[in-house]
Amino acid sequence: MKQQSIGSRPQWNKTRVSSQLGIEYPIIQGPLGGLSTQRLTAAVSNFGGLGSFGAHGWSPSAIRDVISEIRALTTKPFAINLWVSMEGEGARTSGSEAFARSLAPLAEHIQALGGTLPPYRPYVSIKFEDQVRALLDAKVPAFSFIYGIPPKEILDECRAQGILTMGTATTPDEAIVLEQAGVDVIAASGFEAGGHNGREETTSMILIPAVSAAVKIPVIAAGGIATGRQMLAAMVLGAEGVQMGSRFVASVEASAHPDFKEKVIQSVEGDTVLTMKQLTPVRMMKNDFYRQVQEAEWKGAAIEELKALLGRARAKKGMFEGELDEGELEIGQSSVLLHRILPAGEIVKKVWNEFCEGLSSPVKML
Amino acid sequence: MKQQSIGSRPQWNKTRVSSQLGIEYPIIQGPLGGLSTQRLTAAVSNFGGLGSFGAHGWSPSAIRDVISEIRALTTKPFAINLWVSMEGEGARTSGSEAFARSLAPLAEHIQALGGTLPPYRPYVSIKFEDQVRALLDAKVPAFSFIYGIPPKEILDECRAQGILTMGTATTPDEAIVLEQAGVDVIAASGFEAGGHNGREETTSMILIPAVSAAVKIPVIAAGGIATGRQMLAAMVLGAEGVQMGSRFVASVEASAHPDFKEKVIQSVEGDTVLTMKQLTPVRMMKNDFYRQVQEAEWKGAAIEELKALLGRARAKKGMFEGELDEGELEIGQSSVLLHRILPAGEIVKKVWNEFCEGLSSPVKML
Repeated sequence: MKQQSIGSRPQWNKTRVSSQLGIEYPIIQGPLGGLSTQRLTAAVSNFGGLGSFGAHGWSPSAIRDVISEIRALTTKPFAINLWVSMEGEGARTSGSEAFARSLAPLAEHIQALGGTLPPYRPYVSIKFEDQVRALLDAKVPAFSFIYGIPPKEILDECRAQGILTMGTATTPDEAIVLEQAGVDVIAASGFEAGGHNGREETTSMILIPAVSAAVKIPVIAAGGIATGRQMLAAMVLGAEGVQMGSRFVASVEASAHPDFKEKVIQSVEGDTVLTMKQLTPVRMMKNDFYRQVQEAEWKGAAIEELKALLGRARAKKGMFEGELDEGELEIGQSSVLLHRILPAGEIVKKVWNEFCEGLSSPVKML
Repeated sequence: MKQQSIGSRPQWNKTRVSSQLGIEYPIIQGPLGGLSTQRLTAAVSNFGGLGSFGAHGWSPSAIRDVISEIRALTTKPFAINLWVSMEGEGARTSGSEAFARSLAPLAEHIQALGGTLPPYRPYVSIKFEDQVRALLDAKVPAFSFIYGIPPKEILDECRAQGILTMGTATTPDEAIVLEQAGVDVIAASGFEAGGHNGREETTSMILIPAVSAAVKIPVIAAGGIATGRQMLAAMVLGAEGVQMGSRFVASVEASAHPDFKEKVIQSVEGDTVLTMKQLTPVRMMKNDFYRQVQEAEWKGAAIEELKALLGRARAKKGMFEGELDEGELEIGQSSVLLHRILPAGEIVKKVWNEFCEGLSSPVKML
């Protein structure tokens, strides 16, 4: 079957996202929570993408050190990612009426069980204002965030300093709220993603066009994207760039335990599932720990029970210490498409080449 | 923002699927269960797509009449769709190890609750062999099926008579089994679809490339596709055509109640949810009936209880009689992207034009 050429290739990499960020390719590495490292962030940026460092839970002084360490490794733009709200769930969904509607019956159900639906509280209590101050003082090139919207004065200061801001939306409603607040770029996080999923279960095939139609600012696709052809599909749907998490978990530079990385690239279709929707929706691999969570949810466990079962230690156990049965293994559905652990720079090059090949042969033709 | 042209347009419509089916555009109308009509099937075929008629539950003589009625309305190719197995669930998943794995804990759970996980039984009992004999005698151009694989002698007879066969897979494993059985085309049904969903919740963004990599025969994307740009995205991911269900539910010719069609085009993100996974996974709109199902599932209802709650009458009530609160409203996630009820022929033309526009401006560039 011959592949039909689409003729001479223009500068496909020039989107608003790559231009605003000053990067070569509109390929953004997901912050990966605790799995990002200074080496990973710098490698992605050095090879033309945007490296991100997940600094949620880090103290302001630790954040200052991280920024210096990244700058010692690259002169290219990079992003630092924070949780805006220490009560993430409530804040993330500000403005999402659809979410509020969907949550109502669940809240009633949990109350009926004697439980409540409290806002999520992280394991350490650090002031967001102090964390973000560290970023502003260090004049980082880009500031990405989830679980809410920074105060107006912070967004204004970012704009004044030329710090690009990127917020995460799981519904068109949330994207509209972020745009109205003056955020520069929207990351649309689909059902496929390894974390920060919406409860509506809207997939990237639907969310990307829906969010792109809802806002004027650029949208990047985050959720299920791991290859260059998927990147092209996402951009055909309206995205101007992609954010890949799982793909970079399976990178040499990520801090994930080698056994977890191996499990990710060995995984097959059906190995991940979105769970913990009553608490913090997260996609995890089906293992003994997941089955414990599932059993608890089947029995109609109250929030506190699920929180006790989860605990932060479970994620640390699974993803850092490589306890693949008893630990929590967060990963996206795209892990099915991953087969090799590669250096982050090679991943950026490979995805970009696949994207360009896709443009020169978008459709299998006779 | 200028749209970058990809230059002269080749005959993008010539894929293996359009060629094997002898249709102008690789756009297939989903069978829509009872919502398809002879008028709808013929209209889609007359405008260059492939119309399908869902004949599950129809007697052989009724099927013969339907075929004659469709042929009175079009000379173009069309498909008749059947359920292979009267125990659909069990049969559909033959060969899916991933499915078997995922089902085990659920079966245990249901047993623990005093329930069982029986094969699904439809509301009427008609022999598949008699239904398919009606198709073979009438020499229909295409025979599509779900919930299993027809016996080898039937597939052989289809091949001998030049009847193209299309099977539905919800996992790469199922696609491989269908290919090995000698089926001509695979319809990959993603999490977004309005029905016949897999329990693995694999979305089209992942399923299309995964299934395309698993088989050599052509794959069509079924699940979440309602626009021409989505069609292009699906084909960039490896599909050689698309099957659209929800889009044609919102057509003038579909037999859905006007109020249901109106509800579909008014729906917003988050209005549908995949449910009834213990019985027959189906995506439905969130209404009073759905909340009754949800409550039952939260309480750990046994299969028989869910079946009693569902009942076929609920679908009839909702989709045909327009009882939007108490009826079952099956629809795909793509309903969010639908805003108008159009004649089926206009839908085919519109989707194809959007597809071609997408090819001439695949990426938003500066």
